[in-house]
Amino acid sequence: MFTLGELAQRLGLAIEGDEARSIVGLAALAEAGPDQISFLSSSRHQNQLNSTRAGAIIITRELRQYFAGDALVSENPYLSFAHASALFDARPGWEAGLHPTAVVHSTCTLGQSVSIGANCTIGADVKIGDGVIIGPGCAIGANSHIGKRSTLQARVTLYDGVIMGEECNLHSGVVIGADGFGFARDETAWVRIHQLGGVKLGDRVEVGANSCIDRGALGDTVVEDGVIIDNLVQIGHNVRLGSNTAIAACAAIAGSTVIGKNCTIAGAAGITGHIEIADGVHITAMSLVTNSITEAGSYSSGTRMGPTKDWRKNAVRFSQLNEMHKRIRALEEAQD
Amino acid sequence: MFTLGELAQRLGLAIEGDEARSIVGLAALAEAGPDQISFLSSSRHQNQLNSTRAGAIIITRELRQYFAGDALVSENPYLSFAHASALFDARPGWEAGLHPTAVVHSTCTLGQSVSIGANCTIGADVKIGDGVIIGPGCAIGANSHIGKRSTLQARVTLYDGVIMGEECNLHSGVVIGADGFGFARDETAWVRIHQLGGVKLGDRVEVGANSCIDRGALGDTVVEDGVIIDNLVQIGHNVRLGSNTAIAACAAIAGSTVIGKNCTIAGAAGITGHIEIADGVHITAMSLVTNSITEAGSYSSGTRMGPTKDWRKNAVRFSQLNEMHKRIRALEEAQD
Amino acid sequence: MFTLGELAQRLGLAIEGDEARSIVGLAALAEAGPDQISFLSSSRHQNQLNSTRAGAIIITRELRQYFAGDALVSENPYLSFAHASALFDARPGWEAGLHPTAVVHSTCTLGQSVSIGANCTIGADVKIGDGVIIGPGCAIGANSHIGKRSTLQARVTLYDGVIMGEECNLHSGVVIGADGFGFARDETAWVRIHQLGGVKLGDRVEVGANSCIDRGALGDTVVEDGVIIDNLVQIGHNVRLGSNTAIAACAAIAGSTVIGKNCTIAGAAGITGHIEIADGVHITAMSLVTNSITEAGSYSSGTRMGPTKDWRKNAVRFSQLNEMHKRIRALEEAQD
Repeated sequence: MFTLGELAQRLGLAIEGDEARSIVGLAALAEAGPDQISFLSSSRHQNQLNSTRAGAIIITRELRQYFAGDALVSENPYLSFAHASALFDARPGWEAGLHPTAVVHSTCTLGQSVSIGANCTIGADVKIGDGVIIGPGCAIGANSHIGKRSTLQARVTLYDGVIMGEECNLHSGVVIGADGFGFARDETAWVRIHQLGGVKLGDRVEVGANSCIDRGALGDTVVEDGVIIDNLVQIGHNVRLGSNTAIAACAAIAGSTVIGKNCTIAGAAGITGHIEIADGVHITAMSLVTNSITEAGSYSSGTRMGPTKDWRKNAVRFSQLNEMHKRIRALEEAQD
Repeated sequence: MFTLGELAQRLGLAIEGDEARSIVGLAALAEAGPDQISFLSSSRHQNQLNSTRAGAIIITRELRQYFAGDALVSENPYLSFAHASALFDARPGWEAGLHPTAVVHSTCTLGQSVSIGANCTIGADVKIGDGVIIGPGCAIGANSHIGKRSTLQARVTLYDGVIMGEECNLHSGVVIGADGFGFARDETAWVRIHQLGGVKLGDRVEVGANSCIDRGALGDTVVEDGVIIDNLVQIGHNVRLGSNTAIAACAAIAGSTVIGKNCTIAGAAGITGHIEIADGVHITAMSLVTNSITEAGSYSSGTRMGPTKDWRKNAVRFSQLNEMHKRIRALEEAQD
Repeated sequence: MFTLGELAQRLGLAIEGDEARSIVGLAALAEAGPDQISFLSSSRHQNQLNSTRAGAIIITRELRQYFAGDALVSENPYLSFAHASALFDARPGWEAGLHPTAVVHSTCTLGQSVSIGANCTIGADVKIGDGVIIGPGCAIGANSHIGKRSTLQARVTLYDGVIMGEECNLHSGVVIGADGFGFARDETAWVRIHQLGGVKLGDRVEVGANSCIDRGALGDTVVEDGVIIDNLVQIGHNVRLGSNTAIAACAAIAGSTVIGKNCTIAGAAGITGHIEIADGVHITAMSLVTNSITEAGSYSSGTRMGPTKDWRKNAVRFSQLNEMHKRIRALEEAQD
């Protein structure tokens, strides 16, 4: 619980209203009560200002005039809301301490204040930095390093030789360092290419639940600082993700592709292997990228959704598009 | 093993044939032997009636005339087959009882006849209802509730504060309650929005292997009664899934989207965030939904598959479609 | 470490150069140093021959003339590289031996030299062949069989009755034998069809991290010898995958579909249920297959990516394609 004045101070915002008002939590405009603070980040939801019961609102200078109640004024209310969410986070984490059921190899190096949950298995020569939290049921392969204050939620796997920076957060079910999908073909069968590279994660990397980052075939797969990855994402071997790039759920990046900084890859998008994507590229949902992209900007593939009945007719015509094009040209030539 | 008469009684079906015939199992028409029962659910497979060796068949009144052997007559043979599959299910489950290697916090509340498998980790203040079965290797966060007769298969994660109804079934690798993908951007990096909401699953919810349901940012992510979800599905934060909606494998629903009751979302479909889908909507496989849908019916996007050689030519023309449209208009105008 | 002469002998290749040169590892042309061997598999990277510092190169007879240094001559350098990768694989595996924390049912049958990692749970009547390695945190259901020299990496689930051949490799997070997505509908809800079939994997099957192979409804789901499957792939119930077929990441195969031998299914492709794909079919990335394919060859669906601004205009026209077609026909008829 904070007073509105304390919140203003902690968030670095100007206060307009009752400094002593006590605020116990955060809520959306429509759900907030008098002891909660909310936020308005765009004029799109401005009409909710009239009906909200929120005790206070984080709001821009421009929109302040439309709300009569207590407010904190922010240049970026959504960012201030993110900062506030940390203040109100009272969620219990996984149990602290070294659980007696954890199997930790005698050659591991553990920093100060490390927590290792029940039923974890930590291999030889693993180095774990100060303040690292490892949830229950994780398996860490030999020679891996986990940087300070990083968190592995429950049931995460690191294979051998995974190097993680500081303040990373890997969600449950994540698998880092499994073999890349590399096989050569002989006359009769696939022959495995042993994946001898590793995985390097920078600082402040987030990886969502059940996502996979494969180890490199020869060199490393590299995820730079500040990259955020959602759930069920596939990162192939020897991919490089530039800093602060964001990848939404169910996207897949094939092997050896290099993605720039500050890109956003929307959900279920696919990027094929061995290509390069420039900094600042945005790929829209479920688009497939099969060529390198050299300029920042937004890129898309696919078609728009429609009623299946109509779509089916149009889809048939798609298969005739090249022929339609020829017929248009023939008409044009006949016209001349 | 049942007699055909016993089966008729348990399934509530009329019997035409030898009540004393013993039936030891279920099989498809093509594989069934004389001591097995099969079913015919559509006239599409009617020709298999001539060659089947099945001892008995569950069949409609209309198709009964085409089969000379023993039969159980059903208005909905596929539904009767589902009921029969339960009768013949002799699969061993995960071992019963509280396994001594399970780490169960002293503050947990356990109902009658609860099974907790080996190497599980159950956090503080977790409530587990009567008859719940938890497979080996699960991790349950603090304050979660699991309703009566629900099953967690092996290696399931519930984060803290996940509330599950009765008779749910979560398959191996499922992750419920991981953080939603919420970040605000400051000048230099992504700032995490702490996900302070929870997840509420209704009764009889099924979740397939390695699927993920994220917790809400402020309010809860909600899955209503009877929803069935296949493998590798992503449900974003603050999504609401209406009762009895079915979601096939590899589909992804982005944050804050509300889906109605009795919808079917086919495999690998994607639904973007912050939209609403009405009751009774069907989305076909690999379609992308980017706008709200207000009427029941079937919706699609994408193109039809063809040989790559032909497809490539048509795909080039897709990129010229707007120009082709202009040329058609020009031709029409010239004609006038 | 090997001498170049030893490598030539082990790989069965002709040597041209210093037999006594010592080679400590493998690296790509651009990264290799004087004590490493590299390879050139296509003339596309031929220009790197001038700048590489590699101590030796695996190369074809045709390209040998463009490299002055030591070489091993191979008809298929990429395949020779695969064989060499095995020689240089010094990665530590999961710890060997039967870990005391593993919970192994007293009725299990264990072959010679079996390793079972910490925190594993092995059910009743499981049979484990000679030389099998099971990583930490795996859960194996009753009656499953694991063939000789197969590996389960960390945190793999086999449900009951999964039959695996020899020399298979299942990566972390894999789930084999979960229930297929089979439900019948009654008036008010979905009724589960108990999945009474099993899963049969042949020899030398590879399954990538967090992939799922469901058990059959009545008969078995079958994966033939030599099939390789990447990460986050979904294989539905009663699917049959022909030998040496390769399936890349995030692809999904729906129930009862039969895929031939030597097919390649690229990443994020989808194949609907109850169809048949011939031997030797190649499906390109993110294509959707909704009909059977009877002839070998390459097949595709989807559109090409473009800048979102242009794409949007073309996508609008896609929704008018059938109408555009009518207008072309009208123009043609007017012309006659």
